[in-house]
Amino acid sequence: MPGEVNYHDYLQLEKILNAQFPESDKQQLPAHDEMLFIVIHQAYELWFKQLHHEVDSVVKILAKPSLNDNSPELQTVVHRLNRCVTILRVLVHQIDIMETMTPMDFLDFRDMLRPASGFQSWQFKELEAKLGLKFEYRHGKEYYTSQLRSEHVAIIKKAENDKTLLQLLNSWLERTPFFDEKENWGSFTSHSKREDIHPFWSEYRYQYENSLAEVEKNNLQFFDDIFLPDGQQPVTGNQSLSPSASRAALFIMLYRGYPMLELPFQLLNSLLEIDEQLSSWRYRHMNMVHRMIGTRIGTGGSSGKDYLKAAADKHYIFREIAQLNSFLIERRKLPALPAPVEKRLGFVAG
Amino acid sequence: MPGEVNYHDYLQLEKILNAQFPESDKQQLPAHDEMLFIVIHQAYELWFKQLHHEVDSVVKILAKPSLNDNSPELQTVVHRLNRCVTILRVLVHQIDIMETMTPMDFLDFRDMLRPASGFQSWQFKELEAKLGLKFEYRHGKEYYTSQLRSEHVAIIKKAENDKTLLQLLNSWLERTPFFDEKENWGSFTSHSKREDIHPFWSEYRYQYENSLAEVEKNNLQFFDDIFLPDGQQPVTGNQSLSPSASRAALFIMLYRGYPMLELPFQLLNSLLEIDEQLSSWRYRHMNMVHRMIGTRIGTGGSSGKDYLKAAADKHYIFREIAQLNSFLIERRKLPALPAPVEKRLGFVAG
Amino acid sequence: MPGEVNYHDYLQLEKILNAQFPESDKQQLPAHDEMLFIVIHQAYELWFKQLHHEVDSVVKILAKPSLNDNSPELQTVVHRLNRCVTILRVLVHQIDIMETMTPMDFLDFRDMLRPASGFQSWQFKELEAKLGLKFEYRHGKEYYTSQLRSEHVAIIKKAENDKTLLQLLNSWLERTPFFDEKENWGSFTSHSKREDIHPFWSEYRYQYENSLAEVEKNNLQFFDDIFLPDGQQPVTGNQSLSPSASRAALFIMLYRGYPMLELPFQLLNSLLEIDEQLSSWRYRHMNMVHRMIGTRIGTGGSSGKDYLKAAADKHYIFREIAQLNSFLIERRKLPALPAPVEKRLGFVAG
Amino acid sequence: MPGEVNYHDYLQLEKILNAQFPESDKQQLPAHDEMLFIVIHQAYELWFKQLHHEVDSVVKILAKPSLNDNSPELQTVVHRLNRCVTILRVLVHQIDIMETMTPMDFLDFRDMLRPASGFQSWQFKELEAKLGLKFEYRHGKEYYTSQLRSEHVAIIKKAENDKTLLQLLNSWLERTPFFDEKENWGSFTSHSKREDIHPFWSEYRYQYENSLAEVEKNNLQFFDDIFLPDGQQPVTGNQSLSPSASRAALFIMLYRGYPMLELPFQLLNSLLEIDEQLSSWRYRHMNMVHRMIGTRIGTGGSSGKDYLKAAADKHYIFREIAQLNSFLIERRKLPALPAPVEKRLGFVAG
Repeated sequence: MPGEVNYHDYLQLEKILNAQFPESDKQQLPAHDEMLFIVIHQAYELWFKQLHHEVDSVVKILAKPSLNDNSPELQTVVHRLNRCVTILRVLVHQIDIMETMTPMDFLDFRDMLRPASGFQSWQFKELEAKLGLKFEYRHGKEYYTSQLRSEHVAIIKKAENDKTLLQLLNSWLERTPFFDEKENWGSFTSHSKREDIHPFWSEYRYQYENSLAEVEKNNLQFFDDIFLPDGQQPVTGNQSLSPSASRAALFIMLYRGYPMLELPFQLLNSLLEIDEQLSSWRYRHMNMVHRMIGTRIGTGGSSGKDYLKAAADKHYIFREIAQLNSFLIERRKLPALPAPVEKRLGFVAG
Repeated sequence: MPGEVNYHDYLQLEKILNAQFPESDKQQLPAHDEMLFIVIHQAYELWFKQLHHEVDSVVKILAKPSLNDNSPELQTVVHRLNRCVTILRVLVHQIDIMETMTPMDFLDFRDMLRPASGFQSWQFKELEAKLGLKFEYRHGKEYYTSQLRSEHVAIIKKAENDKTLLQLLNSWLERTPFFDEKENWGSFTSHSKREDIHPFWSEYRYQYENSLAEVEKNNLQFFDDIFLPDGQQPVTGNQSLSPSASRAALFIMLYRGYPMLELPFQLLNSLLEIDEQLSSWRYRHMNMVHRMIGTRIGTGGSSGKDYLKAAADKHYIFREIAQLNSFLIERRKLPALPAPVEKRLGFVAG
Repeated sequence: MPGEVNYHDYLQLEKILNAQFPESDKQQLPAHDEMLFIVIHQAYELWFKQLHHEVDSVVKILAKPSLNDNSPELQTVVHRLNRCVTILRVLVHQIDIMETMTPMDFLDFRDMLRPASGFQSWQFKELEAKLGLKFEYRHGKEYYTSQLRSEHVAIIKKAENDKTLLQLLNSWLERTPFFDEKENWGSFTSHSKREDIHPFWSEYRYQYENSLAEVEKNNLQFFDDIFLPDGQQPVTGNQSLSPSASRAALFIMLYRGYPMLELPFQLLNSLLEIDEQLSSWRYRHMNMVHRMIGTRIGTGGSSGKDYLKAAADKHYIFREIAQLNSFLIERRKLPALPAPVEKRLGFVAG
Repeated sequence: MPGEVNYHDYLQLEKILNAQFPESDKQQLPAHDEMLFIVIHQAYELWFKQLHHEVDSVVKILAKPSLNDNSPELQTVVHRLNRCVTILRVLVHQIDIMETMTPMDFLDFRDMLRPASGFQSWQFKELEAKLGLKFEYRHGKEYYTSQLRSEHVAIIKKAENDKTLLQLLNSWLERTPFFDEKENWGSFTSHSKREDIHPFWSEYRYQYENSLAEVEKNNLQFFDDIFLPDGQQPVTGNQSLSPSASRAALFIMLYRGYPMLELPFQLLNSLLEIDEQLSSWRYRHMNMVHRMIGTRIGTGGSSGKDYLKAAADKHYIFREIAQLNSFLIERRKLPALPAPVEKRLGFVAG
């Protein structure tokens, strides 16, 4: 019947199911497991395409200057970022399938694939860039530009130069309507000087500063970058989020109990989950490579394990949000907000 | 460089990533979530292709008359069936992604897909057939033949008519070299008449037979079909496994402690796991449809939920293996095997 | 140091780690796997306790007559119900561990446990009751009262007689402040009579009613119970939710794009997920029992598989919410809400 | 009825369900989420007890000098190690539940727990020690001895001093009956000198040695430690496995297609999976801590994140087995084994 949709055609199964051409077949040394190798990478790439579809739509919404915090579109943003998390969880799980291939099974065709390698997934690199990973933070950055085709390098470069999700997050936090630096923040910081609140906020902090462990010193540095009054902040220049955006983010985390802050909090939280799942994916991937090829050089010529380890450590895109958790204050010590602010945040005394 | 393999080409990403054409775009009512709907179904179909690749190779090995139980190829069979289980687990998990689509989001494009529907996955039906699902046990069988294209119906019919995994399992069990009915089975059954072993094997079972619960009566019927001496068995004709194959399977389960029976046991176990994962997949799928469209008629015109429920109940392919678990005997009551049998089974007194 | 908290004491590990006494040890026929059997059931019971902790707190909040839809406490409700879903997912996964016990391993100690059985988990039955499962819908209800100790039966009875989560949901939906039946619902239903909206709402539905499939007839019955004007509704009396509560729920589902309806929607959705996970748990449990003991009678004397199958089918607690999905309308066909309603729902034209 | 087993008593639920005493209740500042914190740690400790039960039984079997490779007990070892993997997977998944506790929720009671901390799980440290983690490889080793009670330190010390699973693995590999160094290994190494087999085995390797990447140089060092003829090996002394045990392990990996090597291969593989799951657990735990408390000092006074990161990197217990994968040879280039060896390995020409 004309106009009717057929499952097979709709899903383009002629293409999808006829896109597997093992090298080992071409070389007439058929290796059973190469089909798995192809199919799993194709499944990954399909899901990467879907992740781009979601992230693109989120970027488009966040780029609207009119987006504020009681817009219905903020729900859509959170919903789609949470979908990304769900997809990433399945991608992590999917590594179990790859691990059913033993090292000897992989050896049967591994050398035939050179120099192709998982490092050449330009869609994945584009995704990292779109979220906000800067070229200079990327591990092995010269390497990937030399391995990819120029048109794919160009795609990644474009994503690096366009407004990234991280940058849009920064702008959105800076313009957030519920957070008035003068009104909110002034009273918050003066209250927080009490010694029992948090060591960093305290006015006595300079007394014990020298005895801090190294990790806490770094923390204090980060704290000062954000929370010292403008003009007094050291300019370290490593932050992706401005002091004012960071303060708004901390405010959201501290006062998330207010109805108007629930969605903003969920937004921040979903970004941390995305980082965490990406990190788990890289880590399990690294362990899988470790088991598969020991410490030999990967199919693409690099030491896959070392790459993945470095990337797992360095590629946290929203780390500054996570780091803010170091400065939280117990709920029962939180200063009350002024009544007009409370009202704006949707609290109706029950 | 000529001859070098490139990731993008090797994986045929031009095809794979350009195979998504939402109907809602064509009708100029773009629905964001239709992309997810397409991608997830394509991912399923890719994995179905992989499952066929594994099952085909297993069928080919099991069809060799020379395959016996200390052949290295039996390992390959078990390994690949376990891989199928791992894949199916991911496919079950993948339903989480579909569930991020809310009913309202689905409605945005649902009617545009008619009459396409997940029921038209001929690859899945072919897989069920290849494993051993008979046409007459299939729920909604007339329905699927009317919905699929004739070339796809033909593919499924062929799988039904070829030797299925279940049939090959039957032949392999019947010819298994370690199980000599006379030598093993005779001593086993005479020992098992002791009243404290198992009610069904006991020579006194007729005393209490009439007081059995309905479920146990069915069990007893099944027991008699298999374990009464040849000639005394009622001919119910519902079994896929012959009495002799069933006896060999029970023997494997009972005496799996012997080295030579480890792989055969793993083989039986992996088939039960495949059934269980297929069943979980249908069940979660059914629940997902239930949440997605309530009890309305599915995109393909049928009541999706009812179909899936019936299929989840009826499509157990290896149920007879599972049912044998009803007749197991405690290890400490197992009759010892004659020394020559023990030796054949690989036991070296330690 | 006095006053310091010690991990071992804090967690009461002396108790927790000395609470495993295998029967097979007492009978001097030690069975290695009985420890697993004990530990996994103890882990389940610990998590059931946690689920009670969450559900109790949710019930307490929902019981407040002041709770409405922009209260911060509604967030807490949704957050904790989602935690229940996360816990239930792990409980489903945990069945994988039980499945590492083979039927023969279980037989080593199974008969020593009679008549104890998983059916005697009063905490689980109490949980079902607290959520809203009525005694009369419970499969095998006489059975469980005869098997449990009187003090545990009393606990379950109390939960059945107290306000259940389902009843509190009903009250909350009935009093929801944003939904004014006259204002909202009247315009909605008159708009929905257009033939192209949805067959049930249409004024022409009587023309084709007789040709409905059985499943759609049931649906129509359910529809009439809820959506016919008061007084015209047939009194079937099977519903747990009143017509007015059901209408409010459908309204939430239809217009969830409005900020004020986001949390209410998430609440409904989390309840469906709880049902779904409980259902998956029962189903996988059933399959596990099927593989473990075939179709023999369970340790507690009942046919475990049949019980679990019936329960998996009948124990959907929030099924009426799921069924509402049958009556959804495409977003682009939704009637616009009057401006004052829109304002109340938090929409600010962007 | 006397002698009957009751579910509630059997599982000691009076103890298990009355072992939760939140500090925040004692201090009359009740924090809802502390119950979750207690219950999840108790669930972890229950499972740690179960892991000990499995590992103890495996150690006991491996310690039998009579254990060889066609013993039925080897199956038991593999089966139970695989069960450990299944348990560990659930423990990793369980972190999802902990992550439903937000940083602010944790702050409500976090300071009340000082100095208790997850670092004080002596059962987990004992488990690592029992598997083979040496005290000197342990990150933060002085720290843990100072934090734990002396009786718990003693338990861990005992596990370090007893024969560990790693040591027993070494002995078992050394005495493996199918691997005769002279007969097997001599012909293997002489064959492998062909240049196209593997660079390290090649007799020409010295030509290109200086151009090796750093990672490959380390590999070569490790290679020489194992595969140079006895007497020529540099004595680096870092290995836990003797050269002869390592050679047997590599032999198993290379020739796993032979029936007699299937179980030994599965044994090695399950150990790698245990390492990988332990590693995933530490890594996800670390990420969770990172999100929960930023980079502040953990409840036990240490920087939790740094500890976990270091442990995730350094605590691979069976890393030498994984590293052997660097020296595998493609199946089609493997030298054929002499006929008598083939026969011993169970191959019957098909």
